[in-house]
Amino acid sequence: MAALIEPRTLKGFRDYPPALMIPRERVLQTAREVYRSYGFAPIDTPAMEYAEVLLGKGGEESDRIVYRFRDHGDRDVALRFDLTVPFARFSAANINALGTPFKRYAMGPVWRGENTGAGRYREFWQCDFDTIGTTSNAADIEVALVIHDLFTELGFSEFEDDNNNGTFKLRINNRLILNGILEEKNLLDKSAAILRVVDKFEKIGYARVLEELTSVESNGPCLAEAEARALIDLTVHLGRSSTEQILDFLETNFRKSTAQQGICSVREMCNALTTATGNSHWFKIDTSIARGLDYYTGIVFETTLGNCSSIGSVCSGGRYDNLASLYTKLVLPGVGASLGVDRLLAAMEELKHPWLTGSATPAPVLVLNLDAARIGDYQNLARTLRQAGIGTEVYPDAKKLGVQFQYAEKRGHAIALIVGEQEFNDGTVRLKHLARREEIVLSVDDLVGRCREWLIS
Amino acid sequence: MAALIEPRTLKGFRDYPPALMIPRERVLQTAREVYRSYGFAPIDTPAMEYAEVLLGKGGEESDRIVYRFRDHGDRDVALRFDLTVPFARFSAANINALGTPFKRYAMGPVWRGENTGAGRYREFWQCDFDTIGTTSNAADIEVALVIHDLFTELGFSEFEDDNNNGTFKLRINNRLILNGILEEKNLLDKSAAILRVVDKFEKIGYARVLEELTSVESNGPCLAEAEARALIDLTVHLGRSSTEQILDFLETNFRKSTAQQGICSVREMCNALTTATGNSHWFKIDTSIARGLDYYTGIVFETTLGNCSSIGSVCSGGRYDNLASLYTKLVLPGVGASLGVDRLLAAMEELKHPWLTGSATPAPVLVLNLDAARIGDYQNLARTLRQAGIGTEVYPDAKKLGVQFQYAEKRGHAIALIVGEQEFNDGTVRLKHLARREEIVLSVDDLVGRCREWLIS
Repeated sequence: MAALIEPRTLKGFRDYPPALMIPRERVLQTAREVYRSYGFAPIDTPAMEYAEVLLGKGGEESDRIVYRFRDHGDRDVALRFDLTVPFARFSAANINALGTPFKRYAMGPVWRGENTGAGRYREFWQCDFDTIGTTSNAADIEVALVIHDLFTELGFSEFEDDNNNGTFKLRINNRLILNGILEEKNLLDKSAAILRVVDKFEKIGYARVLEELTSVESNGPCLAEAEARALIDLTVHLGRSSTEQILDFLETNFRKSTAQQGICSVREMCNALTTATGNSHWFKIDTSIARGLDYYTGIVFETTLGNCSSIGSVCSGGRYDNLASLYTKLVLPGVGASLGVDRLLAAMEELKHPWLTGSATPAPVLVLNLDAARIGDYQNLARTLRQAGIGTEVYPDAKKLGVQFQYAEKRGHAIALIVGEQEFNDGTVRLKHLARREEIVLSVDDLVGRCREWLIS
Repeated sequence: MAALIEPRTLKGFRDYPPALMIPRERVLQTAREVYRSYGFAPIDTPAMEYAEVLLGKGGEESDRIVYRFRDHGDRDVALRFDLTVPFARFSAANINALGTPFKRYAMGPVWRGENTGAGRYREFWQCDFDTIGTTSNAADIEVALVIHDLFTELGFSEFEDDNNNGTFKLRINNRLILNGILEEKNLLDKSAAILRVVDKFEKIGYARVLEELTSVESNGPCLAEAEARALIDLTVHLGRSSTEQILDFLETNFRKSTAQQGICSVREMCNALTTATGNSHWFKIDTSIARGLDYYTGIVFETTLGNCSSIGSVCSGGRYDNLASLYTKLVLPGVGASLGVDRLLAAMEELKHPWLTGSATPAPVLVLNLDAARIGDYQNLARTLRQAGIGTEVYPDAKKLGVQFQYAEKRGHAIALIVGEQEFNDGTVRLKHLARREEIVLSVDDLVGRCREWLIS
């Protein structure tokens, strides 16, 4: 006999057992339903593409994280490391046939051979939605509304005082505001370097941001200390203000057109978000967000969970000027965001979110097997429940009841159905509420109604 | 400016645009719901594993189709080529913690660097469900019932005369019956070679099967012509008989215990399937099915679509004695089946199945944009419909109505909502049924009701 192979997985890769996969499927299905309800249509692209398509013709430093190899036809291929680059390639190839505006969502795993760590995997799921082919602020506003509905449907609250499952907060910034401020301070040429540092404020604090802003290293912003302090003070000040205060302050103090243009579109967004949802508790302007500003050119979004700031943003995005310039001369501006599924699941676990119950079965009812010859009848009973939308499992072997009850407890079934010869003859069933250890006998006709009742309460 | 990169995909890989992805998501969601309703729980495993884990320690001929390479840590890794091998590895690692019986489903892409052809891709989706850790016939019966519910929910009919969307038929065989017949004919030692040939009957016909059975090539069965003819006649005869006729014929003519045991469990299955579903139209015994009999050891399933025999089986499976012997000494018998998602979609397209409507939007309603400043109000109106479960898109730009109607037609929206200043002032909306070109004005309060009505009819 050959030696056994150790059933191990690769570092940075993991299995999803049912207790983790059931909430993951629920998160994905919720996102799917919300995206669809706004008319975002699903697309899918291959996991593997020509390396040139995914990485461009160059070969950057960052490419080292990409899984890249030669296939059977000696093609230089790679696994996708995000869903944006394949979407850009897809758009360049298909947008003439599809027409604009084009709204799509895509969900799937991506692969990066990075260092692993707490909550960081080499295979993880992304869940993106974008509108391309329009520069309208309405598309930006819609992205914010999708995030609102998504987190509401995920069981998070838009009101800070109602935090049973935690609240969510959408943080909004606009590249144009930041640029306007820097322009006013004559620092526009250093914007990229400054924003990279300012973005770290939450993580590294005042002193180190000051140090980095004033450091004379070659690729740093090299600000005078007074300049740097004024910039940080502004950021901190604005971070503590309300949306209205921030907009008013910016409008009064930064009069150049770049800033005014950014302020104007953010103000329009805030008004529309309030009109559309009936309240303004769930979003705020946060000028300290500089997320991926090398890439984004207008609005920028981050979503944080109220009691879980350690996790960072679980849904982020923004507006970009041109999606697919690597592949086409067609200019495709767009706006979108990405839900970090694995990061969200980690946050939900930390927050003891009720979707992570530890249950390992999607079927709340277990039909016990008292007589192997009755399998057709057991399945027929189960069918009645299934047709009423109640998931129902039938235990496959006529084992001792103790064994079957243990199984129900381990899996997390809520109700056991016990039907022996007596019950078959009488047209009745015995129903046991497993948590309450309550048992009743009732007519088969009342089965669906009682199960529904027990599952709701 | 750098030269553009051609936005091409790899041979054998393809994009799913919305018109194909919307039905694919519907198929997957249907399968998910049916599997879950029986208590099969979702799991997921990595796309990439140690090559040794996926391929065993050897390195077979068939391994050449596997995508295999060295990762950043110089590990010998490969992409999964099915969902069964990863499930075996997963079970060996986790079954002690999970306990048996264990019922799981898994859905995802797999990769094979095979020759491509009509409907054959190098990346394709599998959608498997299995029960492991029990030898009970009840688990086999349940697999058949899952297939029944799956195809019914997919819109196929169990009755041959009601073939609006086509009928489906579950074909059942049992390895034990075949072995029993061969044993009776003293051909058991040649069973593998014979079954490989007999399995091709549908494809290559009587003459070529006869030729191959009697050929004296070294690894063929080398039967005498009379033997071969008797075997084919039996297969053809049985193929034309009803389930009852077949079982009676086998029971009478093949008395050895192997065949009797197989016949007995198939008879029990047929009875239970009839009891559980109330009819026996949707399944039949088919002794010509020899699907993967190197692997399966008991029951074998195939599912064909009534008017689409060219496509072959779209859902196949069977019972196996030991799932994970490569990785563990634990014996894990099981039974399961796999839905071929891409093959099913191809069949549905050929059958003009109503799910393949060509619509490229999941939202039936489009709110036209007559005034960009009203975006908050448009989204608020849309919200009313979304909260009632009606997907509603808002056009992002206040373009000419003609452009917006063209967009609605291209995407396949059913209803347009037209609200200008007049309607906002009156608390009314104009609703247009796009297919019927019918337009009405109604109160906002009646909006949800009328949209529901129009979408059903």
